[in-house]
Amino acid sequence: MARRTGRRPGNPDTREAILAAARAAFAERGFDAASIRSIAAAAGVDPALVHHYFGTKEELFRATVAIPVDPAQLVPAVLAGDPDRVGERLVRTFLTVWDSPVGGAAVALLRSAVSSEWTARLLREFLATQVLRRVLDQLDVDPAQLPLRGALVATQVAGLAMMRYVIRLEPVASADPETLVATIGPTVQRYLTGDLT
Amino acid sequence: MARRTGRRPGNPDTREAILAAARAAFAERGFDAASIRSIAAAAGVDPALVHHYFGTKEELFRATVAIPVDPAQLVPAVLAGDPDRVGERLVRTFLTVWDSPVGGAAVALLRSAVSSEWTARLLREFLATQVLRRVLDQLDVDPAQLPLRGALVATQVAGLAMMRYVIRLEPVASADPETLVATIGPTVQRYLTGDLT
Repeated sequence: MARRTGRRPGNPDTREAILAAARAAFAERGFDAASIRSIAAAAGVDPALVHHYFGTKEELFRATVAIPVDPAQLVPAVLAGDPDRVGERLVRTFLTVWDSPVGGAAVALLRSAVSSEWTARLLREFLATQVLRRVLDQLDVDPAQLPLRGALVATQVAGLAMMRYVIRLEPVASADPETLVATIGPTVQRYLTGDLT
Repeated sequence: MARRTGRRPGNPDTREAILAAARAAFAERGFDAASIRSIAAAAGVDPALVHHYFGTKEELFRATVAIPVDPAQLVPAVLAGDPDRVGERLVRTFLTVWDSPVGGAAVALLRSAVSSEWTARLLREFLATQVLRRVLDQLDVDPAQLPLRGALVATQVAGLAMMRYVIRLEPVASADPETLVATIGPTVQRYLTGDLT
């Protein structure tokens, strides 16, 4: 967020054109294959303007999904410390973000992804490339299992968000965060590094 | 389903009035507190007509959420057999229903619950009273922990549904059901009967 305050908001129409082109590119081709250059071309602007308005490709992606937190800043704290408690720290970090004032944006994204195939694709790409990959790349596990491990983590974390913030099923809806860290953390840990079968 | 074929469909307006009254009652007061008598009164019909059109209170509830399977018929198979594998059988049963032609209704309900507070309340009540309670009542665990255990199961199972059928995150989206049973079953088992902290 610190870098954005120093960036000029720019022409609203140009910003919106870039965002629309970026949404289409990330949803259709995925984060890795979409380039700033092709997004700029689709929006009819110079690539330098895309960087000027939105910063890096990662930052542009976050702008398209309106997520106000930067996984690149949160993931190092999740990975630091006892490797057997990465699961707990991941759940704690998710709950800290969602329970905070900016958490509404994450819940809104989840709601939107359920009703829109377009947003679902963006959320899928965001989860896979910006959150799960960053965590999994640092773990000492069989690379062939990484996609399944990441998707299993996503099932548990998304389900926690659904039941706590959207469906509001008690007692998960109003449970103390540490209760959820203690009960759900070991699940995430097993999906990340444990014996899967 | 078998019983419904023998039941007259009745006047569409009357059926709809009963369903609307039942939805309001189940969402506002919950399954246990809502009575057939009060639902009939709200719809302006005789309670006998509610039974005639919809059968038991459980069957009326299923009609309000448009769920074509009867948890009362599925739960006994989940509970039968090795008590240490209830989690696996629960995940297998869910996947069998969702992967079947009637699974679309369950996914539609999940989608609808995300956008409608009304449907969210109905789904919450349905999960708690028709699915989770039936399973948990038969397990040998501390009754004080039952609500948390049930809600934890719901986080994992709803998240699996979200990622497999709505967001379609690979490889969970197209994974063989038995892969998911083997990997997610132990999570559900721990939430049901394991050490939670």
